[in-house]
Amino acid sequence: MRDVTPETLTQAFADYAAKAGDARTKEVLCSLAKHLHAFVRETRLTHAEWMAGLMALTRAGEISTPERNEFILFSDLFGVSALVDMVNTPPGATSCSNLGPFHQRGAPPLPDGGDLWKGQPGEVMVVAGRVLDAGTGQGVAGATLDMWQNADNGFYAAQDAAQPAKNYHALLTCAPDGSFAFSTTRMQPYTVPYDGPAGDMLRALGRDAWRPAHLHVIAEAPGYRHLVTELFLADDPYLDRDAVFGVRSDLVVPLRRIPGASAPRHLQAFERLPGTVLHAELVIRMARA
Amino acid sequence: MRDVTPETLTQAFADYAAKAGDARTKEVLCSLAKHLHAFVRETRLTHAEWMAGLMALTRAGEISTPERNEFILFSDLFGVSALVDMVNTPPGATSCSNLGPFHQRGAPPLPDGGDLWKGQPGEVMVVAGRVLDAGTGQGVAGATLDMWQNADNGFYAAQDAAQPAKNYHALLTCAPDGSFAFSTTRMQPYTVPYDGPAGDMLRALGRDAWRPAHLHVIAEAPGYRHLVTELFLADDPYLDRDAVFGVRSDLVVPLRRIPGASAPRHLQAFERLPGTVLHAELVIRMARA
Repeated sequence: MRDVTPETLTQAFADYAAKAGDARTKEVLCSLAKHLHAFVRETRLTHAEWMAGLMALTRAGEISTPERNEFILFSDLFGVSALVDMVNTPPGATSCSNLGPFHQRGAPPLPDGGDLWKGQPGEVMVVAGRVLDAGTGQGVAGATLDMWQNADNGFYAAQDAAQPAKNYHALLTCAPDGSFAFSTTRMQPYTVPYDGPAGDMLRALGRDAWRPAHLHVIAEAPGYRHLVTELFLADDPYLDRDAVFGVRSDLVVPLRRIPGASAPRHLQAFERLPGTVLHAELVIRMARA
Repeated sequence: MRDVTPETLTQAFADYAAKAGDARTKEVLCSLAKHLHAFVRETRLTHAEWMAGLMALTRAGEISTPERNEFILFSDLFGVSALVDMVNTPPGATSCSNLGPFHQRGAPPLPDGGDLWKGQPGEVMVVAGRVLDAGTGQGVAGATLDMWQNADNGFYAAQDAAQPAKNYHALLTCAPDGSFAFSTTRMQPYTVPYDGPAGDMLRALGRDAWRPAHLHVIAEAPGYRHLVTELFLADDPYLDRDAVFGVRSDLVVPLRRIPGASAPRHLQAFERLPGTVLHAELVIRMARA
């Protein structure tokens, strides 16, 4: 390697890895090196630009906490997180999505027909749907949906001392045929944090920081692959400019406004529903394990 | 972008950057996104692998200090730093190199013929050379060499409380014809820090952490481009496995052992030289500004 050149560097990296213990680790890291090298060659990156990138990473380290990981945010804003989701979605299954920073373990149980609204501010929304086998289209038995969303003020419970703990977090048990319904309030768009180096990148590129409103869901059922996803609302103004490239058409849920009296009768909040509610029809397709 | 796919994501990133204020910033970030996307598609990176990478970056942030930057170390070990040097070296000039973590501002001045050895342990080495114009091959007037190296124990002064401050750091003023000579001790190979996530990567790839011994030099002269480089010793056992891909053949300095009495007579240490000294012949080619 005493004569490494821009053309031989990638092979030199691979040669150095000849004694790697694990073939997949070697494959991934050699591929990463190859593509980083191609980036530097293509841009003829200057020392000043290289240092600016390293200082952005350094500041990302400084601003990160257990609750806020700026590296994940960079991955999201580069579309890397979304792409990892895309290449890992089984054929026919609902597109998967990254977990995001607001999931909480141990969400309160919610029966089919349960209520997350509890009279809180916001547009009352009834979500009804089914969990289906991605291959057969049949209902999946024994499905649970670990769900979380923000309140009408845009904040998740963990961000907002005014909300009860785990407000709008729930572990829903579906009916034996995979169907489910629950009442809640309409989730709201919000911005990713833009006070750190990832926000500097957004500003440099003239991009905005908005995410369309979404409902996070982790679907699980015996015999099926664990599915992490998020659902969007069909009339959301940010669907075409999600800062983190998270929207796929199968994740956009059709909406209509219906009389409260037309909502599913087994909803616990049925008697308390207002005259008109937003109705979202949600289908989740799970792949066999 | 509500229908982003692995094939359209890179274009979506570029479309998001349509309002970027600076064309070069956009070019660099869009290229980085493109190559990161290609990496994820090629490897079909799993969520677990993606998270392992992000956790390596997170730990890099945690272990970094003003004195130790793990992100720069990752860049070095991926060959990215070396490649930035390569694409920024002007034709005909001495290959440039990154600064490394041990440069100190305000090195003590050293006249042509000066001494860094000062009787310290190690093999006595005489370095003699010239600073030349990369285009004409003529000597460069008014050149200074800001140099630093480690001691015989492998440590730089800043790492070793037993050494005087700025030991083996010097700002050498060359003769008017660009020639110079000085006495020192042979610099030693050493390892990059391997107690953090970058070291974990080295272990996973079965790589070692050694760098061949080298003399760091920042060459400056009126009318010439600032040159940051490092020079290696032709008999070093690590020349072909430098952990950071820093060796280029024009940076490898020929060595011979000569009688101390054959060393340049204007060396301040001439009378004190041992019977045999290591002699390194060093030519630095500078590009016009």
